[in-house]
Amino acid sequence: MTSGASNEVDLSACSIAVICGGVGAARFLAGLLQVVPADNVTAVVNVGDDVVLHGLHISPDIDTIVYTLADAVSPTRGWGLDGETWQAMEMLARYGGPDWFSLGDADLGTHLYRTGRLAEGAPLSEITSEIARSWHLGLDLLPVTNDRLETRVTTVDEGEIGFQEYFVGRKHDVPVTAVRFSGAESCSPAPGVIDALESADAIVIAPSNPVVSIDPILAVPGIRSLLTRRADSTVAISPIIGGKALKGPADRLLRELGFDASVSGVAHWYHEMAKVLIIDNADKDLAASVSAIGPRALVTNTIMSDAAVSADLARTAVHAALG
Amino acid sequence: MTSGASNEVDLSACSIAVICGGVGAARFLAGLLQVVPADNVTAVVNVGDDVVLHGLHISPDIDTIVYTLADAVSPTRGWGLDGETWQAMEMLARYGGPDWFSLGDADLGTHLYRTGRLAEGAPLSEITSEIARSWHLGLDLLPVTNDRLETRVTTVDEGEIGFQEYFVGRKHDVPVTAVRFSGAESCSPAPGVIDALESADAIVIAPSNPVVSIDPILAVPGIRSLLTRRADSTVAISPIIGGKALKGPADRLLRELGFDASVSGVAHWYHEMAKVLIIDNADKDLAASVSAIGPRALVTNTIMSDAAVSADLARTAVHAALG
Repeated sequence: MTSGASNEVDLSACSIAVICGGVGAARFLAGLLQVVPADNVTAVVNVGDDVVLHGLHISPDIDTIVYTLADAVSPTRGWGLDGETWQAMEMLARYGGPDWFSLGDADLGTHLYRTGRLAEGAPLSEITSEIARSWHLGLDLLPVTNDRLETRVTTVDEGEIGFQEYFVGRKHDVPVTAVRFSGAESCSPAPGVIDALESADAIVIAPSNPVVSIDPILAVPGIRSLLTRRADSTVAISPIIGGKALKGPADRLLRELGFDASVSGVAHWYHEMAKVLIIDNADKDLAASVSAIGPRALVTNTIMSDAAVSADLARTAVHAALG
Repeated sequence: MTSGASNEVDLSACSIAVICGGVGAARFLAGLLQVVPADNVTAVVNVGDDVVLHGLHISPDIDTIVYTLADAVSPTRGWGLDGETWQAMEMLARYGGPDWFSLGDADLGTHLYRTGRLAEGAPLSEITSEIARSWHLGLDLLPVTNDRLETRVTTVDEGEIGFQEYFVGRKHDVPVTAVRFSGAESCSPAPGVIDALESADAIVIAPSNPVVSIDPILAVPGIRSLLTRRADSTVAISPIIGGKALKGPADRLLRELGFDASVSGVAHWYHEMAKVLIIDNADKDLAASVSAIGPRALVTNTIMSDAAVSADLARTAVHAALG
C-alpha cells in the first residue's frame, strides 16, 4: 500500500469498508469513488429504516445511495429520483390512502422489483447487488443484514412508533425518549459483511446519524465487537457541525438521549471504535475536547457541497484510517 | 314496476343485478347507468383473474369497471387509465424484473391502496366500495367473493398456469385443455352478493367471457344454484358475435373446451340460468337454434361501439328480464 519513493499511500490498492446511512453516506461514497477504484469499496448499509408500505418493501438508505452514485438522485431533495413524477401518490390520495410517505412513480419500479424478488425468496443482499449492477455501480453494496431489523422510536406523545412514522410522518419534530432496534438480537450479518469489515485496509463510519443510521448497523450481532477490535483502522466522520446536523434529527436525538449535540457527543458515541474523528473546521475549537474523549480529532471541511469537497474528505478519511 | 297507463315498465323503480367480467361488462354497465338510477344497480364482479404481482393485489375486472364508469379508462386500450404514464414499468425493466403485466403509474395508486387496505385486514368488498365511492360511482360494486379464487388454465405446452400468465403473458394464444377455479369450493359470496341476486327484479349476465369471466362467479358456492332458480328473471348477452369474440379468447376457449364458438355454444353454456339470450343481428339466422337449446333468442345490435348502443342494449336486456 505504500509506494517505494514516498510515504504517500497508493489508494488504488486499498480496500475500504464504509458504514453507511442515507444522504450523508451517499455523498461521502460519491467522493470516495473519485479517489479509489469502485472495486475496492464495500458499503455496509443500514436497513433499520426499511419499511413495508402498501405491501412494498422500501429500503430508503440503500436507494438513496444507489440513486446518488448513479447520478440519478434528485439534487434538491437529496433522495428519490431526479425528474420524478407522482401519479401513483395522487391516485392514492384520491382514495384517502396513506400518502405521507412519498413514493415517486419511477422509484416505485425499484420497490416493485425488490418486493417481487423478496417474494421469490431472494435475500435482500442479492437483490441489492442486482440493483447496483443495473445502475453500473462498481462498489459492493451490502445491506448490513438480510433479516428484519426495525428501528423503533419511543415518543413522548404517542409511545413507540416506527422509524419512518417518526422521521417522515412526524417530520422528526416530536420529543423522543428512546430508540431501539427490534429484531436486532436475532439478525445475522448479510453474507460478505463480516469479511469486508475484517479484511478492509480502512474502515470509515460515514457522516450519518449515529443514533438511527449507524447504531442499527452496530446492533447486528458481531459488528460492534468487530469494529471495536478494528478501531485502529477506523475513522468516523462527525455528522454534527457547529452543534447541528446538516440534515435530519441527529443533533436533537443525541441531546434527547443524554449526549451532547456536538462533536464531543459524537466522540463519546464512537470512542471505542474509531481512532480518529473527523470534525468540521467550524468545530476546530473542540478538537482538544474530542481528543480527550478518545479519538484523535482531525479538522477539515466536511460540508460536501460539491464533488471536490466530497473527494477531499474521502481522501482525508482513508489516509487517516491507514495512517 | 308497471305504470298504470301502459305495459311499459318503469325502469327507475327496478333493481338490477349484473354478473360481470371486465371490458364487455364495463361497457354494458355504462349503458345501464344511462337508463336506470345507479342506486338500483348491483354489479357482481369476477375476481378469478385477480393476481398478486410484485406484492401488489391487482383486481383487473373491478378496475376496468371502475375506470370505465368513471370515464377515466383508456379508450384505445379498453383497460387502464387514459393519459397513463409508465415510469415504474420502465424502471422495473431496467432491473430485468417481470414487466409482462403493464401497470401504469396512476393505476399503481389503486393497487397500492387496495394492497394496503387488505394488509390492514379490510375485506376486498369494503375496499372496492371505497374505491367506487372515491370515483363517485353510484352503483353497488361487489367482488363475488372476499376469499381467494384463482382461475387456472391448463395449457398443452406448459401445463397449468395462472390466468394472467395465460391471458397477458401468452396473449391467450396457446392451446388450452382445461380451466379451473382454485379455491372456489371454500369461497363464500361477499356480503351483499346473495341478497342482491335474490332480490333483483332483473338479472343480466353481461357480455363477458363465459369460460373465464362468468364461470368463476358461478363457481362460488351458492351462486349457480341461485341463478338457476332465478332463470325466469335472468337474461344473458352473448359475447360471441358471428362466431368470434369481439375481444379476448372466448371463441377459442369455448371451442377448446368442446363447445361451439357460436351463440349456440353460449346458449348451451347458460341454458339453465337464463330465459333469454340476447344475440347480435349478425347471428339472427341462429336464433331458432338458440331457442331450441333453451333460452329464447332475442336479436339486436350488441356491438357497444358508442354510448347510445350500450344504453339501447341495456334497456333491451332489462325489459327482456322483466318481461
